[in-house]
Amino acid sequence: MLDCAIIGGGPAGLAAGLYATRGGLKNVTLFEMGMPGGQITQSSEIENYPGFFDHEKTGMDFMDTWQKQCFHFGLKHEMQKVERVSKTGEHFTVTLENGEGVESKTVIVCTGSTPKKAGIKGEDTYFGKGVSTCATCDGFFYKDKPVTVLGGGDTALEEALYLSNICSDVYVVHRRDTFRAAPSTVERVERKENIHLITDTVIEEVLGDAMGVTGVKLKNKKGEITQMDNPGLFVFVGHNVNNAVLKDEEGHFICEMSEHGQVIVDLSMRTSVPGLFAAGDIRIEAPKQVVSAAGDGSVAALQVISYIQEQA
Amino acid sequence: MLDCAIIGGGPAGLAAGLYATRGGLKNVTLFEMGMPGGQITQSSEIENYPGFFDHEKTGMDFMDTWQKQCFHFGLKHEMQKVERVSKTGEHFTVTLENGEGVESKTVIVCTGSTPKKAGIKGEDTYFGKGVSTCATCDGFFYKDKPVTVLGGGDTALEEALYLSNICSDVYVVHRRDTFRAAPSTVERVERKENIHLITDTVIEEVLGDAMGVTGVKLKNKKGEITQMDNPGLFVFVGHNVNNAVLKDEEGHFICEMSEHGQVIVDLSMRTSVPGLFAAGDIRIEAPKQVVSAAGDGSVAALQVISYIQEQA
Repeated sequence: MLDCAIIGGGPAGLAAGLYATRGGLKNVTLFEMGMPGGQITQSSEIENYPGFFDHEKTGMDFMDTWQKQCFHFGLKHEMQKVERVSKTGEHFTVTLENGEGVESKTVIVCTGSTPKKAGIKGEDTYFGKGVSTCATCDGFFYKDKPVTVLGGGDTALEEALYLSNICSDVYVVHRRDTFRAAPSTVERVERKENIHLITDTVIEEVLGDAMGVTGVKLKNKKGEITQMDNPGLFVFVGHNVNNAVLKDEEGHFICEMSEHGQVIVDLSMRTSVPGLFAAGDIRIEAPKQVVSAAGDGSVAALQVISYIQEQA
Repeated sequence: MLDCAIIGGGPAGLAAGLYATRGGLKNVTLFEMGMPGGQITQSSEIENYPGFFDHEKTGMDFMDTWQKQCFHFGLKHEMQKVERVSKTGEHFTVTLENGEGVESKTVIVCTGSTPKKAGIKGEDTYFGKGVSTCATCDGFFYKDKPVTVLGGGDTALEEALYLSNICSDVYVVHRRDTFRAAPSTVERVERKENIHLITDTVIEEVLGDAMGVTGVKLKNKKGEITQMDNPGLFVFVGHNVNNAVLKDEEGHFICEMSEHGQVIVDLSMRTSVPGLFAAGDIRIEAPKQVVSAAGDGSVAALQVISYIQEQA
């Protein structure tokens, strides 16, 4: 019987593992198929995690210390894909893809969310080298420079507004001539002098060289091809919330979820199911930042320790 | 007119400053009397902030990078004590101790809380060198060693329970023979074999040498003096929430507060007053950890950026 099963090995899961084991829990396992680290390992530079400020270091370097530190206190790592989490009676069963069931007193779900790709030529090649899915993370790298934003939903336009405070010009490329975003957001975007809307247009290709993105090739409805030489491309075509592990065999969620498929939590990362916690990008109102995900993970682990003591 | 006034320069305030300025806000000022850094600068070692894991480095070393990083993007520092925050119409006035009023579109309050001291001989001398006010932070440094806990309230007993998972023995010293803590907490403490209750007793002196705390001198109701050779002393005699800046001239709070004087916030650190945010140890359910305070600060700053855009 585990004290705590942590599903997912990004910043939230690692911080939860650190706090759970350092807090004295003996049997804590983190389930993650690959090497823990999360999305941030794909970044070429990080400057918004307080306490880490070295322009020479990549996301992979950044996570190096986390690996050492978070496993130092006895956290175990199982390279297994989790199929499902269920609660029967007092305890949880974590069902693995290989069919095995692992019993645990508590569960912290940190499976995050995955930004959707647009499927453009060059998008993968330049991901983390000019192609980004996070304005808060990467906007500042394009201070006083022009950037391209792809998308027409709420997130795309809100992120365009965020970028307009930092970048010289923001070119929003959208395949339709109307926006799905809230009318008030569209109005605010239209009022911003340095946001330019390029509608009825798709991005055909991300252009770049050894240093990263140099621009994009555009194609409008009439088939005309043009090119924009912006060094940054922000792709906002939606997120997949990785919530499949919280569905029972009939496809129903085991805890309360938002309409967007995010886990509803309180300030202490408690879900609607006692003993089940959620941390990081999978929860409602997640700011999708390493530091906030890590904060979530630490809070959830401290709650797990209290919960186990109360049950004893 | 400031875009954002940040009151308090601990991890929450610094992280808020980093995110607000890196997010493109031009006029952001952090008000803090001394050097920013917060309580953590008094620690001799830190091992629970994800990404910082160097046993040779102190809390002061740890905050070094934060200083550079958080001020790098244009955050200004005013070495002024803030008297009061008030909102008139759309904007806020931050009144300084010198009587000056600074106008701001938004405010993030990060003034934290201050653990009370017990006023024991040697307590100040060995603070951060064996005397601690945070079990989560420092418990692990006494793994499989005996520690002393001072206090009889909920926090003291909950922290004793936390320590009992890590330390060999936990000696709880309390000046009365009954505990103010919730009966269920007292029961759980009594059931723990390695927690020992020493009632009707006070700590006369913290004993130590060049390496730190070596023990405590006890005095019971009958006046008998004894000594315990435990290397750690955890003092839990209450916290002062630093909420004075949120009181108006008549002494009423300008936003909704808990019965313990903490600011009530939602998951995005919004208070009951639009444009006013709270982050870190001053808010309800604060886990009092650097990483969670930093997470709070970053979230609050991102909300400030959205709030200003919505008002524009």
